[in-house]
Amino acid sequence: MREVALVGAGQTKFGDFPQKGIKELFAEAYAEMLSSVDKGLDPRVIDAAYVGTLGSGGFQLGQVAPLLTGHVGLTGIPSVRVENACASGGFAVFQAVLAVASGVHDVVLAAGVEKMRDLSGEKSRYWLGVSGDTEYERLAGMTFAGIYAMIAARYMEEYSVDRKYLSMVAVKNHANGVRNPKAQMRKAVALEKAMGAPDVAYPLNLYDCSPTSDGAAAVLVVAAERAHEFTDRPVYVLGFGAGSDYLAVHDRETITSFKASVEAAGRAYEMAGLGPEDVDLAEVHDCFTIAELIAYEDLGFAPRGGAPRLLEEGVTELGGQKPVNASGGLKAKGHPLGATGVSQVAEVFLQLRGQAGDRQVRDPKVGLTHNVGGSGGTATVFLLGRD
Amino acid sequence: MREVALVGAGQTKFGDFPQKGIKELFAEAYAEMLSSVDKGLDPRVIDAAYVGTLGSGGFQLGQVAPLLTGHVGLTGIPSVRVENACASGGFAVFQAVLAVASGVHDVVLAAGVEKMRDLSGEKSRYWLGVSGDTEYERLAGMTFAGIYAMIAARYMEEYSVDRKYLSMVAVKNHANGVRNPKAQMRKAVALEKAMGAPDVAYPLNLYDCSPTSDGAAAVLVVAAERAHEFTDRPVYVLGFGAGSDYLAVHDRETITSFKASVEAAGRAYEMAGLGPEDVDLAEVHDCFTIAELIAYEDLGFAPRGGAPRLLEEGVTELGGQKPVNASGGLKAKGHPLGATGVSQVAEVFLQLRGQAGDRQVRDPKVGLTHNVGGSGGTATVFLLGRD
Repeated sequence: MREVALVGAGQTKFGDFPQKGIKELFAEAYAEMLSSVDKGLDPRVIDAAYVGTLGSGGFQLGQVAPLLTGHVGLTGIPSVRVENACASGGFAVFQAVLAVASGVHDVVLAAGVEKMRDLSGEKSRYWLGVSGDTEYERLAGMTFAGIYAMIAARYMEEYSVDRKYLSMVAVKNHANGVRNPKAQMRKAVALEKAMGAPDVAYPLNLYDCSPTSDGAAAVLVVAAERAHEFTDRPVYVLGFGAGSDYLAVHDRETITSFKASVEAAGRAYEMAGLGPEDVDLAEVHDCFTIAELIAYEDLGFAPRGGAPRLLEEGVTELGGQKPVNASGGLKAKGHPLGATGVSQVAEVFLQLRGQAGDRQVRDPKVGLTHNVGGSGGTATVFLLGRD
Repeated sequence: MREVALVGAGQTKFGDFPQKGIKELFAEAYAEMLSSVDKGLDPRVIDAAYVGTLGSGGFQLGQVAPLLTGHVGLTGIPSVRVENACASGGFAVFQAVLAVASGVHDVVLAAGVEKMRDLSGEKSRYWLGVSGDTEYERLAGMTFAGIYAMIAARYMEEYSVDRKYLSMVAVKNHANGVRNPKAQMRKAVALEKAMGAPDVAYPLNLYDCSPTSDGAAAVLVVAAERAHEFTDRPVYVLGFGAGSDYLAVHDRETITSFKASVEAAGRAYEMAGLGPEDVDLAEVHDCFTIAELIAYEDLGFAPRGGAPRLLEEGVTELGGQKPVNASGGLKAKGHPLGATGVSQVAEVFLQLRGQAGDRQVRDPKVGLTHNVGGSGGTATVFLLGRD
């Protein structure tokens, strides 16, 4: 396959924007991506576009990709919507990378968008519920917080883990969110307060859950051999992988590890010829705090049951050895489903180029992104590096 | 890019199957695809899967790809839903071809599924409406038949074309459908009857509209260098392309040609080093009869305004020089949105291998498929050939 690079990235602030529709959010992320390309970008060189989105405003739209690309004046090119629930954005990037790797396209836009904040609580639960198995989970009354609560309870039991470690993820990610001007929640939280928050689905409380969000993100994926037409500091795709599992958690071999993540990470590491020890920073899918603990283990940062120790030792804090979710993560940056996976790639792009401002990690060379669909039905992992 | 081949294809009968859900339909198409692989296929060699679907049963499901691939026991692999309305299936094949062309995957499943028949008329109109521009078309009361009626009226005016030619498409495709055991409508219709049917949206009448359908289709896309592990008579992807346009028809330069189709066809012809004159048979997107006339011109089979003459001369009939929609097309075979683009590829696969039974075209060497999203927001074109 042909080598692939990233030369631009942009995203909206994540949050609550009643005055903006998906077209406006998409256009804003696209414009920031355009202006991030150091040597400028004539949009006419864009060969294809992928847009990740789950419901894009209440499940009322089909063929959203040409709707959005047409809105910013991109017509004629292949424009494709990709949907894998909360991993829609990661898979949009995945398809863009494959399209460039194939040699068929040279310059491809990967974007994601979601608008969730103007839904009622009931509609919002429905929205998230469809990412799981409708027949055996959603229609039986299972909420998404409920599924992750089951996973957390099992994890705590299996490895004799205290609930405190869930809250430590929230504390860390909220502290990082304060430093990210694009984050939805820029508010530090003390461990005691996080631990004492009202339950959502035991053992998960309010501070264990990511918010619902409006937002969009966009990155520009190009053939590495052409990267220097756009910038002198490209970011390279060193490896990438995706995986899947049974959608309903009751069908799985285990619920304290996501097979989709393990497969995705394994493929990405193998392609890059790298291991977890080479990763300098990571953006992982912390839709619920337990998901970040499991991600540490699925990505090989810690052995099974070893995630709490990483938190205990501060390894994944912003100043630690391997910062995780320097952006604030889904927990504090926000989680507009289709935008999330693209935003993770945008964050690592900035970090590797030293453009991450107050949340800059010290001199990272290799970054990882990890995006999960729903409760682990699908996942993507990217390994990104610089010259 | 690496050469790509097809080695298996299957599909359900299209029609009205209240007793089958999307899982059953998908499994049935998948099983037929498996059994079509001459030298057998161990499903464990499948590297990735793409599933095209718009609503898959009433817009109540997210992350449908792993739901379906998990249902047939495929887990671990990348499993991705692709949605571009009525072109979702064509884009699923497009992504599978790119994935193999990239060298990242060797054996990829491309499938499509839709279940439309258990929706009420109102819900069904909604379903189709979301494929257009919701803000400016659907919510303003524009139906899908209405959009194509506008296009037909404009085409008839621009080229002084009689309504009769619309009906001739219906007559031809219904005649072909009689020969296809998988077709939803196996009923010949006389020109007089087709012309005298009740109006749906003038100038389109009942026989100008494809039906709503349940159904699924699946094809197996592999690296050409490995094709002979699976069969001694592979079908090769000679060229492929995709395109897009503004979603709302009022934004377009013209409505009597689809820019998305023209771009898709141009790319496919260029890649294959072939022209329209090399195409021995085609499956084109006749969601409404007018769409087939426009397809003749967008694909270069006829000059602008020249489509009626092809019909007049019988060129596109089953026994003609360039048979179009030997399967019956969307009009008679049926149109389960996400399945359609995959089913077109499956049909040409059978035709090129001489396995199309009563509807077999005489010794074709090159076949074309053409799949359109909604009213032309997106399109894919494949050129397929054999040794």
